[in-house]
Amino acid sequence: MIPKGHLISEIGDGDQVKSVFLVSERRLLTARNGTPYAKLILSDKTGEILGIIWEDAPQKMSGINLGDVVGVKANAETYENRLQLRIKEIRRFDEKDVDISSLIPSTRRDMASMMEEFDRIIGSIRNSQLKLLIESIFSRGDIRDEFMKAPAAKGIHHNYIGGLLEHTLYVLKSIDALLPVYAHMGLNRDMLIVGAILHDIGKIREYSYNKVIDMTPVGRLLGHIYLSAHMVDQHIAGIDGFPEELKLQLLHMILGHHGHLEFGSPKLPMTREAIFLHMLDDLDAKLIGFSSIIEATPEEEVFTPYSNVYNRHLYTRIYQDEES
Amino acid sequence: MIPKGHLISEIGDGDQVKSVFLVSERRLLTARNGTPYAKLILSDKTGEILGIIWEDAPQKMSGINLGDVVGVKANAETYENRLQLRIKEIRRFDEKDVDISSLIPSTRRDMASMMEEFDRIIGSIRNSQLKLLIESIFSRGDIRDEFMKAPAAKGIHHNYIGGLLEHTLYVLKSIDALLPVYAHMGLNRDMLIVGAILHDIGKIREYSYNKVIDMTPVGRLLGHIYLSAHMVDQHIAGIDGFPEELKLQLLHMILGHHGHLEFGSPKLPMTREAIFLHMLDDLDAKLIGFSSIIEATPEEEVFTPYSNVYNRHLYTRIYQDEES
Amino acid sequence: MIPKGHLISEIGDGDQVKSVFLVSERRLLTARNGTPYAKLILSDKTGEILGIIWEDAPQKMSGINLGDVVGVKANAETYENRLQLRIKEIRRFDEKDVDISSLIPSTRRDMASMMEEFDRIIGSIRNSQLKLLIESIFSRGDIRDEFMKAPAAKGIHHNYIGGLLEHTLYVLKSIDALLPVYAHMGLNRDMLIVGAILHDIGKIREYSYNKVIDMTPVGRLLGHIYLSAHMVDQHIAGIDGFPEELKLQLLHMILGHHGHLEFGSPKLPMTREAIFLHMLDDLDAKLIGFSSIIEATPEEEVFTPYSNVYNRHLYTRIYQDEES
Amino acid sequence: MIPKGHLISEIGDGDQVKSVFLVSERRLLTARNGTPYAKLILSDKTGEILGIIWEDAPQKMSGINLGDVVGVKANAETYENRLQLRIKEIRRFDEKDVDISSLIPSTRRDMASMMEEFDRIIGSIRNSQLKLLIESIFSRGDIRDEFMKAPAAKGIHHNYIGGLLEHTLYVLKSIDALLPVYAHMGLNRDMLIVGAILHDIGKIREYSYNKVIDMTPVGRLLGHIYLSAHMVDQHIAGIDGFPEELKLQLLHMILGHHGHLEFGSPKLPMTREAIFLHMLDDLDAKLIGFSSIIEATPEEEVFTPYSNVYNRHLYTRIYQDEES
Amino acid sequence: MIPKGHLISEIGDGDQVKSVFLVSERRLLTARNGTPYAKLILSDKTGEILGIIWEDAPQKMSGINLGDVVGVKANAETYENRLQLRIKEIRRFDEKDVDISSLIPSTRRDMASMMEEFDRIIGSIRNSQLKLLIESIFSRGDIRDEFMKAPAAKGIHHNYIGGLLEHTLYVLKSIDALLPVYAHMGLNRDMLIVGAILHDIGKIREYSYNKVIDMTPVGRLLGHIYLSAHMVDQHIAGIDGFPEELKLQLLHMILGHHGHLEFGSPKLPMTREAIFLHMLDDLDAKLIGFSSIIEATPEEEVFTPYSNVYNRHLYTRIYQDEES
Amino acid sequence: MIPKGHLISEIGDGDQVKSVFLVSERRLLTARNGTPYAKLILSDKTGEILGIIWEDAPQKMSGINLGDVVGVKANAETYENRLQLRIKEIRRFDEKDVDISSLIPSTRRDMASMMEEFDRIIGSIRNSQLKLLIESIFSRGDIRDEFMKAPAAKGIHHNYIGGLLEHTLYVLKSIDALLPVYAHMGLNRDMLIVGAILHDIGKIREYSYNKVIDMTPVGRLLGHIYLSAHMVDQHIAGIDGFPEELKLQLLHMILGHHGHLEFGSPKLPMTREAIFLHMLDDLDAKLIGFSSIIEATPEEEVFTPYSNVYNRHLYTRIYQDEES
Repeated sequence: MIPKGHLISEIGDGDQVKSVFLVSERRLLTARNGTPYAKLILSDKTGEILGIIWEDAPQKMSGINLGDVVGVKANAETYENRLQLRIKEIRRFDEKDVDISSLIPSTRRDMASMMEEFDRIIGSIRNSQLKLLIESIFSRGDIRDEFMKAPAAKGIHHNYIGGLLEHTLYVLKSIDALLPVYAHMGLNRDMLIVGAILHDIGKIREYSYNKVIDMTPVGRLLGHIYLSAHMVDQHIAGIDGFPEELKLQLLHMILGHHGHLEFGSPKLPMTREAIFLHMLDDLDAKLIGFSSIIEATPEEEVFTPYSNVYNRHLYTRIYQDEES
Repeated sequence: MIPKGHLISEIGDGDQVKSVFLVSERRLLTARNGTPYAKLILSDKTGEILGIIWEDAPQKMSGINLGDVVGVKANAETYENRLQLRIKEIRRFDEKDVDISSLIPSTRRDMASMMEEFDRIIGSIRNSQLKLLIESIFSRGDIRDEFMKAPAAKGIHHNYIGGLLEHTLYVLKSIDALLPVYAHMGLNRDMLIVGAILHDIGKIREYSYNKVIDMTPVGRLLGHIYLSAHMVDQHIAGIDGFPEELKLQLLHMILGHHGHLEFGSPKLPMTREAIFLHMLDDLDAKLIGFSSIIEATPEEEVFTPYSNVYNRHLYTRIYQDEES
Repeated sequence: MIPKGHLISEIGDGDQVKSVFLVSERRLLTARNGTPYAKLILSDKTGEILGIIWEDAPQKMSGINLGDVVGVKANAETYENRLQLRIKEIRRFDEKDVDISSLIPSTRRDMASMMEEFDRIIGSIRNSQLKLLIESIFSRGDIRDEFMKAPAAKGIHHNYIGGLLEHTLYVLKSIDALLPVYAHMGLNRDMLIVGAILHDIGKIREYSYNKVIDMTPVGRLLGHIYLSAHMVDQHIAGIDGFPEELKLQLLHMILGHHGHLEFGSPKLPMTREAIFLHMLDDLDAKLIGFSSIIEATPEEEVFTPYSNVYNRHLYTRIYQDEES
Repeated sequence: MIPKGHLISEIGDGDQVKSVFLVSERRLLTARNGTPYAKLILSDKTGEILGIIWEDAPQKMSGINLGDVVGVKANAETYENRLQLRIKEIRRFDEKDVDISSLIPSTRRDMASMMEEFDRIIGSIRNSQLKLLIESIFSRGDIRDEFMKAPAAKGIHHNYIGGLLEHTLYVLKSIDALLPVYAHMGLNRDMLIVGAILHDIGKIREYSYNKVIDMTPVGRLLGHIYLSAHMVDQHIAGIDGFPEELKLQLLHMILGHHGHLEFGSPKLPMTREAIFLHMLDDLDAKLIGFSSIIEATPEEEVFTPYSNVYNRHLYTRIYQDEES
Repeated sequence: MIPKGHLISEIGDGDQVKSVFLVSERRLLTARNGTPYAKLILSDKTGEILGIIWEDAPQKMSGINLGDVVGVKANAETYENRLQLRIKEIRRFDEKDVDISSLIPSTRRDMASMMEEFDRIIGSIRNSQLKLLIESIFSRGDIRDEFMKAPAAKGIHHNYIGGLLEHTLYVLKSIDALLPVYAHMGLNRDMLIVGAILHDIGKIREYSYNKVIDMTPVGRLLGHIYLSAHMVDQHIAGIDGFPEELKLQLLHMILGHHGHLEFGSPKLPMTREAIFLHMLDDLDAKLIGFSSIIEATPEEEVFTPYSNVYNRHLYTRIYQDEES
Repeated sequence: MIPKGHLISEIGDGDQVKSVFLVSERRLLTARNGTPYAKLILSDKTGEILGIIWEDAPQKMSGINLGDVVGVKANAETYENRLQLRIKEIRRFDEKDVDISSLIPSTRRDMASMMEEFDRIIGSIRNSQLKLLIESIFSRGDIRDEFMKAPAAKGIHHNYIGGLLEHTLYVLKSIDALLPVYAHMGLNRDMLIVGAILHDIGKIREYSYNKVIDMTPVGRLLGHIYLSAHMVDQHIAGIDGFPEELKLQLLHMILGHHGHLEFGSPKLPMTREAIFLHMLDDLDAKLIGFSSIIEATPEEEVFTPYSNVYNRHLYTRIYQDEES
């Protein structure tokens, strides 16, 4: 296994860099004096950097394509206030020889312990048919595997490997945290837990995330709300005696979880469980979305740039008690 | 078979009425002088009328429930400008002894010839997998049967037995009429035809229409857009080698056929076939909707009352050439 | 103290009623035969009922005004399917002689234990300036008293005596339940707790709730969002050395807690604490709102009537595991 | 007549180009070393290309203005992945010496045969007053001429010479195709045909399209909806005995043809003919708009870039039966 | 001329009424005991009142139709808290024998002095072509006459005879009051004055106001914005050498005066004069609209009922300085 | 005091410039050949210009920071069609040695005469409590001072020193101009005048305008609507016997002055004074906004570029009578 080398986020001006990257963009150009040169966007799980090849660019670039994994030797330099790599050597590697997970952005949490927690929650489901449903779905190794890896978004929040699992887990934990407060309402915990586990399950088909996170044609044309509901409906069909009423309420939760027609839910939440799930789903997305915009803002700024997703600037400060 | 008798739309002041009706509403009341009387709403396929029982109301009403089929002898009279029936005799009938279709509103077109036309269009599908899909769905006798009977709406348009078939047929005919105009675009006719046949198929589960047209819990909580897509998806799963791309575009058409997120489509139409289907579907609904509002307006009015569905008054006149 | 007598919710057809009510509406009318009679709407904390006086109405009604507390002797009877009281005697009582709380709708929870819980949460605030702020506000006996009694709404949710306290308490409990899930975000608990305690404090001036719950002119013209923020701003001015930054973030939470401009927040939530508070506030209002609509729907109906507040029907069923 | 020479869409890297273009943009610049050079955007009916003059730019550019027709000799070369022309000679031509139609984008259909078809449809109008109206308008040679040349839009669809005629013709053909399907409704064909012919007639004054397609001040400040209706109203005033009712319904169709207030129709469609015209107009615009975006997308892309006009990506594939 | 007699607004319980009214509604009914009676809604310029005929209703009502002018002798009495007339005699009058203006609501201002003021402002126009335009329009006696009588609305504001003149005059006076404040902007007063005079001129055809104020079919289907612009455009066509630019800006002001597409303006105001006119027009409509709602609210109420036009309650109080 | 020197708006190609500027942006860069150079954005009250230092950039730039006042000697030259300064000398000045008002954009009107007019209007207030309120606020020297200097916006209108005073004054003059037109309504002039003076008073804390106009954190998080109302509420608390009703209506005007919830007013205007103020405030903002966009458009253009603030192009021409 070839070692990753320098992480992009840690490269500084003047560094001698030796590292493995993904090629996110490549262009062969001709300078005004007629000599050819090359520009590449290189990426790893910590970000992107511009690379330039001034010498023998055509030869060096031959055989190197978009999406390739490459080993690079370069000097880091600053040009127009931006760090770039002056590439001396570049070489195509076989994907199998590198740790691909070091090249694409991933959840910062530990995947294994997240899955453990997830399985523990599954274990707490008491309704036997819902238990069967979850088993039916996650016993398929590919689904379990994809569920662990899929991102939960392309844009602003949970847009990384493991994002779906992380988001699902936080919604589950929120439900178990908040249910006791509303214990007197008699909401059905199994319904909520299973709805939360499955509400975004269709995202495993909505996104491709092999090396770049993007929407699939299936995702663009059908969307995860339909995909999730259909997948659940299909698995239920394979379970003998699954109650119609239980199926109805579960599918309704999934279809309604975006909370508003204009956000792509074909039905508004009409049950208390559906509104409960919608709001905890929304809260997790907003908290993570706010945080990721704030984290991408330079420390010294008290407001983030205007966010077109949220139609506002965000305030970057959390008040710290001086006394504590 | 007990004969229907007078149609509600044809009853006049002073008539001696003997007819079969559905009981849509029933109330046992006490007049100010202490004597009990009963009020009923009676309906048949041509409309509704108020019925009153002044004498021996408790005895006559005993055993008569909401939704029952009843035989009635009564005098028609006008009270506060409205026709009503002063009921002398009322008797519960067994549903099997009457022609139930005379009691609930139905399409004015001939069901048999509509099905013939429908089958002829099915016969013109050339893509073998789509042919298999349609056969797979309509070979199930219950689906074919329900498809013939289901209404296409509860509210303003096609809100009668056979409405779904009628609406579907008009969309199909519109497609075949309009496709030649856009022949150079190379739209896929089979895709359009099959999309049109199936776009509202979920309405057979969205509405109950045994004696009264209403939405089912499944319809309210899931809606026909999901139900249609899921049913199609499921039947496709049973067809060996059905192309993924074909399935994708077909399901997209169904999900997108309301044309706007706020009208319950979870995805906007992104293909030319999807926009084509959406607009011909919308045109048929609007034309029938406009017509039914205009028909319900007294002949002498040039505008209909304000329509909350369309947010406007409609103009009732079609210009008639004096010369022709 | 005069005893309350029959509760409206417990009166049945044929009962001899003797009870104390509030007069919510009164009209002296003339029957077609020329004799005068009176109609009243009587209310207590469990609901409303129509009362009619057929004999000596003018004399009996003299001196009885809207909002008066009255003692009534009557027979309960059913007319046009609705229970009403045929009043035989009616007498004006002094408010001081009756337990007024039995006459207006109140929270079903125990006020004392809610206040205890509330005080316990206040006790857990660690930031000394925020502690001072809360003390400054609630040490004023009138504010503490009004805070315990005020409703949180006029319309659909928490529209009863004690509603503000109950709503505030549930938001507080939700915060403490959910914060551990997002512990890694480092949200400021004191900020959240104090924001939650004070976000609706202006409602003590937005509603009048002496005998009928209504909006005050101050409420209509200024609204509780401004009133809450201003009251907090004012009390902060009285605290030496209260940090500007702390005040800024706290006031922002209050101004932004409706989450959207069109719902009356003059600013969108821009901090994570503000979005956190907004969503838990919204969730509590929706859960209680849904529940109160569902509770007002007859047991046998699976859907509530269409709700203009939520633009949807609600589904009344919570799924009950057959096995459990 | 000077021959056009190379079409921009057919120029390849390394070509020796000799051709006639329109000057869409011109700038005289100074390189960092002090020598002046020039940049031009050149266009013809197939597109645009960047041209650069490195030598004697000031002399060569003198007398060459925006909108001029020029003859150019140049070498085609690729710089930063984009084809550009290194111009050696450039010369101003008189517009009269070139075929101006080769320089601006035009309908791909044959103008003569479109006009023939258009005249044939005019010939089929039976109502004598409507016939007179159409004759009154199109007998004016300038209107007929402008109607043949005007574009139907500046932006996304029919944005080329002949676009108005093409669009109008397709709406007319759609009406005649679809009317038989709704024959039982008794819609007035003459009303629809004349409404369709005239609904966009004001566009001959809304756009200037001499060499560049742009909106005129009249178009920006008044818009084609008003212009169309007013022009028709005016011509009707010149026809003796034109029925008021006929005028009213015809003008209403024109004013309402955008279908929604927020799209610039001052009145919503209130007749069946008005809604019929609106939807077929909209369908043609959407089909052509979708197609032109899809055609501008590289063949290998399955989705178009995000369209701000339609608020969505479009899917570029039409399903092709493998078997056929 | 038959004298009007009692005004509806001045009738009190117990009055012997002898007066002339319009018949706004009429119904012949049958009481439960079989005897026929009649209900009428009678109106004059001060309001409406219910009239009942208990004896010989069929004979008395024969020949009396909707919209008729009638003389009535009756006793005023209160039933269910509402004043009504128990009619003893009723007789149809010829319209020519009564002062019709006493029967329909009219401006409270003096028509003659308003017209005088209006003519004075017309006299102050300096641009000779605009002067010609105004003369061309108002020299037609019918237009001048209708302009004096037309209402400016059906609903909430200026919904009475003379309303158009009154509204126009107030907008004109506002312009002349406010222009000096913005003198430095160099706005064209003649443009503003003529735009204000003509912006609503189409309302003379949008409303019928012979005996009842209603929208005409022309008004519903075309609307006063189009009608005003077209009328102006037409009259300009009759003026030799009227500058195109002047026409363009004037028509733009008229088309844009509702200020927003969704309020029926097909174009947004793009000139400073257009935005100036729009806002003063809007201000006058809102002030009169607010006032008329407030005036219709009982003196003792501090808020009006909820207004669906303005989506709010209005506060009825203007603060009165105690000292002054 | 160091003289300002050349104004940016007056610099021409080839000028030898010697002047004082603000540093709005600064970047130290490295050219491709390795030599460092610097780019600065320099500004004064008339606009911005790019400055470049080719020689000894690091030395010359050392000690020069963002926001500094600098003296510059340079040659003006045109590069890529844009004027820029080739800086030969640059030197940091102490703010105290220059007239800072020459460096930031300011109202074109005379501050002193505006304040005089403002004080005259204050003097005309008759209600003694409102007089006390205004005195209480403006007697604080800092408030009076800030009120004179604050801008009224960051974006499109009144975005310059003195903008708040100028805007306030125009609204005040509009009120006094328009009130006589609506004299019969009996609006309270003192209420309107004081509301107008104070409606935007919070902007003195919403914007920072020391050297650059920007929003403060207080402005972003709380907004001037709350800040204005709270400040007024606070000062009223200091006035003995200020009537509650007067306070209520005054605060309502301030909270409602944006006229719509979605523009940040937490309450819609419910009094006639509130709607009056809102519309004159809006009119002034729109007139100045339109004008400033039109002034920024090259003289020869008849339309401005598309404005995202107003969602339209603006027409730049005011019609000039040829005759006058």
